[in-house]
Amino acid sequence: MILAICAGVLCALIAPAAAGSGIPEVKAYLNGVDAHSILAPSTLLVKIFGSVFGVAAGFVVGKEGPMVHTGACIANLLGQGGSRKYHLTWKWLRFFKNDRDRRDLITCGAAAGVAVAFRAPVGGVLFALEEAASWWRSALLWRTFFTTAVVAMVLRSLIQFCKSGKCGLFGQGGLIMFNVNSANPSYNTADLLAIMLIGVLGGILGSLYNYLVDKVLRTYSIINERGPAFKILLVIVVSLLTSCCAYGLPWFAACTPCPTDLDVQCPTIGRSGNYKNFQCAEGHYNGLASLFLNTNDDAIRNLFSSTNKNEFHISALFIFFAAVYFLGVITYGIAIPSGLFIPVILAGASYGRLLGRLLGSFASLDVGLFGLLGAASFLGGTMRMTVSLCVILLELTNDLLMLPLMMLVLLISKTVADSFNKGVYDQIVKMKGLPYMEAHAEPYMRQLVASDVCSGPLISFSGVEKVGNILHALRMTRHNGFPVIDEPPFADAPELCGLVLRSHLLVLLNAKKFTKNRVLTRTEYLRMFHAFDFGKAGSGKGLKVEDLDINEEEMEMYVDLHPITNTSPYTVVETMSLAKAAVLFRELGLRHVCVVPKTPGRPPIVGILTRHDFMPEHVLGLYPDIHPHK
Amino acid sequence: MILAICAGVLCALIAPAAAGSGIPEVKAYLNGVDAHSILAPSTLLVKIFGSVFGVAAGFVVGKEGPMVHTGACIANLLGQGGSRKYHLTWKWLRFFKNDRDRRDLITCGAAAGVAVAFRAPVGGVLFALEEAASWWRSALLWRTFFTTAVVAMVLRSLIQFCKSGKCGLFGQGGLIMFNVNSANPSYNTADLLAIMLIGVLGGILGSLYNYLVDKVLRTYSIINERGPAFKILLVIVVSLLTSCCAYGLPWFAACTPCPTDLDVQCPTIGRSGNYKNFQCAEGHYNGLASLFLNTNDDAIRNLFSSTNKNEFHISALFIFFAAVYFLGVITYGIAIPSGLFIPVILAGASYGRLLGRLLGSFASLDVGLFGLLGAASFLGGTMRMTVSLCVILLELTNDLLMLPLMMLVLLISKTVADSFNKGVYDQIVKMKGLPYMEAHAEPYMRQLVASDVCSGPLISFSGVEKVGNILHALRMTRHNGFPVIDEPPFADAPELCGLVLRSHLLVLLNAKKFTKNRVLTRTEYLRMFHAFDFGKAGSGKGLKVEDLDINEEEMEMYVDLHPITNTSPYTVVETMSLAKAAVLFRELGLRHVCVVPKTPGRPPIVGILTRHDFMPEHVLGLYPDIHPHK
Repeated sequence: MILAICAGVLCALIAPAAAGSGIPEVKAYLNGVDAHSILAPSTLLVKIFGSVFGVAAGFVVGKEGPMVHTGACIANLLGQGGSRKYHLTWKWLRFFKNDRDRRDLITCGAAAGVAVAFRAPVGGVLFALEEAASWWRSALLWRTFFTTAVVAMVLRSLIQFCKSGKCGLFGQGGLIMFNVNSANPSYNTADLLAIMLIGVLGGILGSLYNYLVDKVLRTYSIINERGPAFKILLVIVVSLLTSCCAYGLPWFAACTPCPTDLDVQCPTIGRSGNYKNFQCAEGHYNGLASLFLNTNDDAIRNLFSSTNKNEFHISALFIFFAAVYFLGVITYGIAIPSGLFIPVILAGASYGRLLGRLLGSFASLDVGLFGLLGAASFLGGTMRMTVSLCVILLELTNDLLMLPLMMLVLLISKTVADSFNKGVYDQIVKMKGLPYMEAHAEPYMRQLVASDVCSGPLISFSGVEKVGNILHALRMTRHNGFPVIDEPPFADAPELCGLVLRSHLLVLLNAKKFTKNRVLTRTEYLRMFHAFDFGKAGSGKGLKVEDLDINEEEMEMYVDLHPITNTSPYTVVETMSLAKAAVLFRELGLRHVCVVPKTPGRPPIVGILTRHDFMPEHVLGLYPDIHPHK
Repeated sequence: MILAICAGVLCALIAPAAAGSGIPEVKAYLNGVDAHSILAPSTLLVKIFGSVFGVAAGFVVGKEGPMVHTGACIANLLGQGGSRKYHLTWKWLRFFKNDRDRRDLITCGAAAGVAVAFRAPVGGVLFALEEAASWWRSALLWRTFFTTAVVAMVLRSLIQFCKSGKCGLFGQGGLIMFNVNSANPSYNTADLLAIMLIGVLGGILGSLYNYLVDKVLRTYSIINERGPAFKILLVIVVSLLTSCCAYGLPWFAACTPCPTDLDVQCPTIGRSGNYKNFQCAEGHYNGLASLFLNTNDDAIRNLFSSTNKNEFHISALFIFFAAVYFLGVITYGIAIPSGLFIPVILAGASYGRLLGRLLGSFASLDVGLFGLLGAASFLGGTMRMTVSLCVILLELTNDLLMLPLMMLVLLISKTVADSFNKGVYDQIVKMKGLPYMEAHAEPYMRQLVASDVCSGPLISFSGVEKVGNILHALRMTRHNGFPVIDEPPFADAPELCGLVLRSHLLVLLNAKKFTKNRVLTRTEYLRMFHAFDFGKAGSGKGLKVEDLDINEEEMEMYVDLHPITNTSPYTVVETMSLAKAAVLFRELGLRHVCVVPKTPGRPPIVGILTRHDFMPEHVLGLYPDIHPHK
């Protein structure tokens, strides 16, 4: 409980953003949601130590999600040129000061996180591709592959170095954490039917898991909002419950005599492993204790093991499954860094092995392999990934001959679960209210046109604008982009000059190159700036309106916006279907789309579409009569 | 030679498009190049039988590329609703009659091809992602995964069924074709240096391979243009050369006494396998003959084998490597279906094993594993894929512990080779003159704006246009899209109504719903058509201008184009950087982009950009003074 409180205090007081898995946040960031503090240095520190404390406290949580978040945080720290606050800066890192390269770097960080958590370099690349990234380029594939190759090499040398056993639990399992390669994977039609059953049930239980996690999260968010003390209290309660399960439930399990033909010690006392003695007499072991009073990794290894088919009683497996399923649901959402992979794998493996035992007379496949397939079905049912899970499980277990079965189970469980609800990460993103932009347009968007959802009023600037007007607009609104319209005498008729960004306006105003009259000054002051002045600053570090110091006299002066205007923003015509505009917006990864009028002779811009204008809440709020699924 | 002539005759006379690998063509098709006959049913038939004959004739060619092409052809046949010519049609397949679903289906076909060729279901998905597809959606990932899962299940049952040995070479190797799992993959720093050397040399040799293949292809295309007879003659010459190498070179190799501690028969006589007797005395074998006088698969298995380190003399390996490298280069491009994977793997494996033997005293890694890494380095050096090759090799050899090394070698060889030239498939796409649209904009495009490359003259229609004018435009040009401009009295001032497609115009004209006067008829004739009437027809099966039968009187009548006009085409402003327009065009997978004027008061459209306007040849032809790499 002390460890649990440490983790809880760190999370609740220093960096609340470090609680939970972190994968939904990274996913949203890579989709373009630049939420504050998601990837801040303080989050990084708390994530690392909080995760260590949380896992050590014996919670049913994994270190995988936090590792992905950690990787992304480190990448972000590098991407914004280090941390000025902690005096860690590198000048050459300024090349990452733009959205795309920083996003690429963070994708690589997430891939590295998975690669190191599961010791699965290829799985890391695929996870980054399938789950994390929203935009994919072949260059990015290459970069993530490079990152995880480095991870693999480093991991391999560390494992080599730790072979002596000096590194605690680190070296265990080698590069392949749960080796099941020894099992003989021959199967017949009865096995196939059993496996389909695993897939279907796994899908149902997986989607139920998502449903429960969602409900619990909503309940917890009410408690957590009351303040850090309540957060820590919640951590203590869950920690108590976990301990009660771990130390209480094994008393209900019967003792089993040690099998005689074993290579390993039985019972093991005083270290993590198999065949726990617990309350039993000499030469006996307690199956349930072997699962509970172990590291999560060792419990999984025991469940995947195929050396002793009858190692665990059916009742022990059932109790463990129910307890882990329940604890997994109530643990996610408390104020500690908590991954979802391990709880899901634990529950899935015990469920699979349980089903394997129950179907023992019917199916000939090994119970360890049943455990593996059960884990696959649960992962498919909650996370809804396909290729990446398949490769991660392959790299975890080194059992290539199981591949066809694994693919089958993943497909079935994902299909079944998809008919109930969304993947767990998508659910969390939505629950957190992050404006995630889906890859496809929603069906109801076809009934609307672009101008239907433009939220007004539109604030636009003249090509040469009065400083006071700009400052007023920047202060009054939180818009990040403003259209610039050229009017006579700079154009024959009002025409759309382009789009200027808030951050660029702030840099321009800060330089105070104003003129008394309304004249073009294009070339004169461009020499004053360097391209990097307009680069994207680190999160929370750019200029703010409040930083500007502009006096009354300057307010009446003019500034030429042409040099900082993007003169060819992407535009859509007002009558374009909203679905089509959404595709443009999403595929090109835009932040602003200008809506222009269809007929000439009207003002040259109708409105600006931003991410929020495409959100279902906004659209359905404006048009409540639209059927959302038609 | 008879088999070779059969393959050559099939290719030269029936379907010239079936020659070669097929992967470049599939890649170009998925990029949007709808070239005729690439995926026609006749190509499919010739590809299957030609590939069987070609491989059986003993050429140094693979079946992998042709299998990908075969998969894509079958998918295309399904996608266009079967073949009317061969009376194989299904009505429900009409749902695939649009570009996107057909493209998805063909991607799945290509993935299935790789999955079955290498028995690598996950590798198939990744190949389709990394090499074949140009646009990627998560739905597509799921679909290809489903396809290859089915492939894996079917393969697995067939292998189970063929265990009795009745299926010839099919069952060999089981699901894992070249199992090297028995070797012990421990390595030290010296090994790492040796492996880096393999990567660097493999990259250089791989890019040299690409260079030579390109030169040979250009030479062959001159010969092949002279007619089918010359094509077949070329096949005969190459077949002769191959036979000379296979039966001639082993005479130069010395005989080796059979090792005594073997599980397998030595020497083997009369069947494919290891330890060929050839001209040697009883109890001896000829190493070079064991490589040449074998199926390609068995030769690769021999090179990857780690049971007998000294099985092949250094000289035998060198001769085999040189011969296969040379034969691989001269075989690709003759009129037979020929994959590139097997020649590259063969050359790479012999090169790797050779290097392993040469560095034997220095490095401790097994020579079989050196062979595997050599194959990886060659594949990386020629094909330039990363993740997919890695997974394919993993699934081919079932050696997960080699993964870090494999990644390292692939990265090094790809990086080295990329500094010389492009990947072999990209080269072939370019050499064939297919207008492939790269994912990124070329650097010189930033110096140009969209209107710079619009090729005129622009042909546009009125909202209600005279039939004669439309017919004239359709006959005189080969444009596929025409802008429609609304003029008074249908609008206050000329405005861009939208874009109509040639195929839709043809369907409309064919229905002959014309009016005597210039009036809107919107709703009246819309009921005459069904959405499927405007669906995309199978390749070469749509209406043509010549099919229309319109008399003099009808030529003077009018037709309302509004109902078939896309009223919100994607547009760019004329001053937009060409690079930005290229990104829009490529990311959204467009065929036409309308270029609109910046200032009001001019005609509402400046031009239309199509795929050809973005091709380097076109742009650099218009502006020869631009530096292409700046």
